[in-house]
Amino acid sequence: MTKKLTSREENYSQWYNDIVQEADLAENSGVRGCMVIKPYGYAIWEKMQSQLDKMFKETGHVNAYFPLFIPKSYLSKEADHVEGFAKECAVVTHYRLKNSEDGRGVVVDPEAKLEEELIVRPTSETIIWDTYRKWIQSYRDLPLLINQWANVVRWEMRTRLFLRTAEFLWQEGHTAHSTKEEAIDETKKMIGIYADFCQNFMGMPVILGKKSDNERFAGALDTYTIEALMQDGKALQAGTSHFLGQNFAKAFDVKYTTKEGKQEHVWATSWGVTTRLIGALIMTHSDDYGLVLPPKLAPYQVVIIPIYKGDDEYQRVNTEALKVMKSLQEKGISVKYDNRNTHKPGWKFAEYELKGVPVRLALGPRDIDNGTIEIARRDTLNKETSKIVNIASQVKILLNNIQENMYNKALDFRKNRTFTAESKDEFVSLIDEGGFVYAHWDGTEQTEELIKKETKATIRCIPLDSDKEEGVCIFTQKPSKQRVLFAKAY
Amino acid sequence: MTKKLTSREENYSQWYNDIVQEADLAENSGVRGCMVIKPYGYAIWEKMQSQLDKMFKETGHVNAYFPLFIPKSYLSKEADHVEGFAKECAVVTHYRLKNSEDGRGVVVDPEAKLEEELIVRPTSETIIWDTYRKWIQSYRDLPLLINQWANVVRWEMRTRLFLRTAEFLWQEGHTAHSTKEEAIDETKKMIGIYADFCQNFMGMPVILGKKSDNERFAGALDTYTIEALMQDGKALQAGTSHFLGQNFAKAFDVKYTTKEGKQEHVWATSWGVTTRLIGALIMTHSDDYGLVLPPKLAPYQVVIIPIYKGDDEYQRVNTEALKVMKSLQEKGISVKYDNRNTHKPGWKFAEYELKGVPVRLALGPRDIDNGTIEIARRDTLNKETSKIVNIASQVKILLNNIQENMYNKALDFRKNRTFTAESKDEFVSLIDEGGFVYAHWDGTEQTEELIKKETKATIRCIPLDSDKEEGVCIFTQKPSKQRVLFAKAY
Repeated sequence: MTKKLTSREENYSQWYNDIVQEADLAENSGVRGCMVIKPYGYAIWEKMQSQLDKMFKETGHVNAYFPLFIPKSYLSKEADHVEGFAKECAVVTHYRLKNSEDGRGVVVDPEAKLEEELIVRPTSETIIWDTYRKWIQSYRDLPLLINQWANVVRWEMRTRLFLRTAEFLWQEGHTAHSTKEEAIDETKKMIGIYADFCQNFMGMPVILGKKSDNERFAGALDTYTIEALMQDGKALQAGTSHFLGQNFAKAFDVKYTTKEGKQEHVWATSWGVTTRLIGALIMTHSDDYGLVLPPKLAPYQVVIIPIYKGDDEYQRVNTEALKVMKSLQEKGISVKYDNRNTHKPGWKFAEYELKGVPVRLALGPRDIDNGTIEIARRDTLNKETSKIVNIASQVKILLNNIQENMYNKALDFRKNRTFTAESKDEFVSLIDEGGFVYAHWDGTEQTEELIKKETKATIRCIPLDSDKEEGVCIFTQKPSKQRVLFAKAY
Repeated sequence: MTKKLTSREENYSQWYNDIVQEADLAENSGVRGCMVIKPYGYAIWEKMQSQLDKMFKETGHVNAYFPLFIPKSYLSKEADHVEGFAKECAVVTHYRLKNSEDGRGVVVDPEAKLEEELIVRPTSETIIWDTYRKWIQSYRDLPLLINQWANVVRWEMRTRLFLRTAEFLWQEGHTAHSTKEEAIDETKKMIGIYADFCQNFMGMPVILGKKSDNERFAGALDTYTIEALMQDGKALQAGTSHFLGQNFAKAFDVKYTTKEGKQEHVWATSWGVTTRLIGALIMTHSDDYGLVLPPKLAPYQVVIIPIYKGDDEYQRVNTEALKVMKSLQEKGISVKYDNRNTHKPGWKFAEYELKGVPVRLALGPRDIDNGTIEIARRDTLNKETSKIVNIASQVKILLNNIQENMYNKALDFRKNRTFTAESKDEFVSLIDEGGFVYAHWDGTEQTEELIKKETKATIRCIPLDSDKEEGVCIFTQKPSKQRVLFAKAY
């Protein structure tokens, strides 16, 4: 009856693909590397958007919209930036098709060639800072705290649904400040908001830190990151926040007049999270039976399934089920009532298990005789029969428990898979097993590259809150100021 | 003190541009034809989105996301469709830039040429129906009721902010049905929802009708439209809903198995509204003092401005103003409290008048002594001093009055500018004056073209609810079944 998923042990990567497909989250399209986000997957993204948007607005940010296209010359203005993005750009060169001469379709009209090519935005720093030049004159115009919800394109060669796609959806914050300190504070504040969101809404613990110079955003002075650990022991970068210094202000000549009447370049930040978070959500919580969703991001938190034979039983069960639905909705709980007669209860049980609905309520004639209802929770797969009295309050408490339990379970998993390596051999074997590995590193790019080449591990971050205990690099024995976090990564 | 707008009488088109600029709604970007939607303009779009999204969901639709790019061969599959869109397409031909040989920037890498060009979606029928083929097998999979919020690109030669831009934001619904009747019902239902939204949220009356064959969407069998009348007497098409028949199902081979086990092609609709609605909103209500926003779509419905000299007065006024704000918010009214000390009250009055905030409250020390507050409404520019007791209830009622008054005013305007022409001469002179003109037409494309050539008027729609009174065409004297609606249009 149930659709069989590949188990994690059998083939983790296939398990992930199976879940994305069987839980109806997304699929590949006819366009290389571009995904279709299906309604159930998109509903999760809408929940994420709505919560993040609220958090951005509560911290004084407003939304705006900037062009999809970036003139090639804009992209080139910041040297590191263009170096980082030029190799994976979708380029618009023409603005018209025409009928082909053989009459068998349409071809690009060579006469409609653009004077300057347009890049489909891989990120919007350049087009936005070109605009900010017009918006910022005086210290009174600062800070400028703007966010954009948009699609972006990076021509990735190897793509995976949600985790790495040529087109993806994201939000990108772009702020402008009068001082360096204020911009750094904003950078940290926003990575903090992302960490809050991941932990308290996605139920996904993250490690907060700075990227090494090598892994920094192209054009940034500092990149802050949050790193999560997936069930296969690989790290996933869940969000980044960049301190851009005055790089873009200088490239686009954005200056402001200080209170004292001096002209100064503006300080900048940018920060973003993407539909990749859906991939992170799947890989943090799901099991061999399917998706497991935290109540705070589930498109519906509860599904009610009526159990009956024949019309008379249906009438009785339906009446009671509708009452239960209403009482849950009155407590602000989102509910799906699946009373379709085209599918049997067993099929429905499997379906909602696969789709990760946090709580399943089942109700039959015997329940009604006894004043009971069956409550099943998706995270532990436990089920019990409970009094139907106060069912809404019971479910409300249960949803909170599930949210908390999912976070704690993920945190335990991470604790069990986080290690400290004191030698190269130990490091190599721990990385091979999978997990987060703290180790001393001499701080050089060469050693970082060497470690990557030998073990496939990268520096996920230089953690912000770790002990600043000194030591020696496990690869070179040179002095190290603190342990940094390594892992193989998505 | 006030920024002077060009008046409507002086230069209507410049008046529109002035409002868009001075009310901080949008501006042109460095990319030809692509606009930047500024935070205040985008906040109006968010209000529109949120209400429309609610209406779509209440009628059983769900959101999803489809690729930005459409392979050229997909676009070509439906003959009328490609004919309609090929001439204004942004075409992606390459996927990489490289450093130029002179070291002075980046150039398109000729080795990164795509095998098949990708079109930046001008609308998504083709990519969506290519996907629906995989989603639809049986009658159980129908209806499929899906909406997408997205950006689209049509390479327009003459652009105007909001009204006609190369890139714009929109929603596009794409539904699939098992019967022709059901698809036609959906087409009508959605144009009805648009009419509801325009009238009851935008305060903009619309005429609902069918497009003539000539003005139909490329690929549709029937296009339903809503047409609004702007203050310069020109019509604006505010939304369309298309009955696509089986055209796309046939082009993309989308069949379903009926209950009886037969294979049939699926029936389709699509429907959309765009950021153009912001242009319509501006031109329906605004006056020579600036934007006028209906309370239901205003980013904030009320602005409170404290009037004071010195710190002591400020403390008294501030305390009272915060109380007023709180009481308004408790009634669900959105409020901006502008207590900035960098700007004088007069400047603020002008600013919020320009930005169309429906209600302005001003509060000074004398008001506090007298237990009063000044209430100014933006639609009529009336102001009065009122008791501060129950201010929240008073404002709540006032906001409803403003919403209603704005609709009625727009409706009166339209009534006064709607005419019936009985002869060609009368028609020509009425069209010249500006407004909606009902007239008999012989139903042929040739006559439609002739009228357009001679008068610049187009058939806005064949109204659904008009008398089916017969007559003779005002241009050809040939028989006509009913009067149709003509106007010059945006």
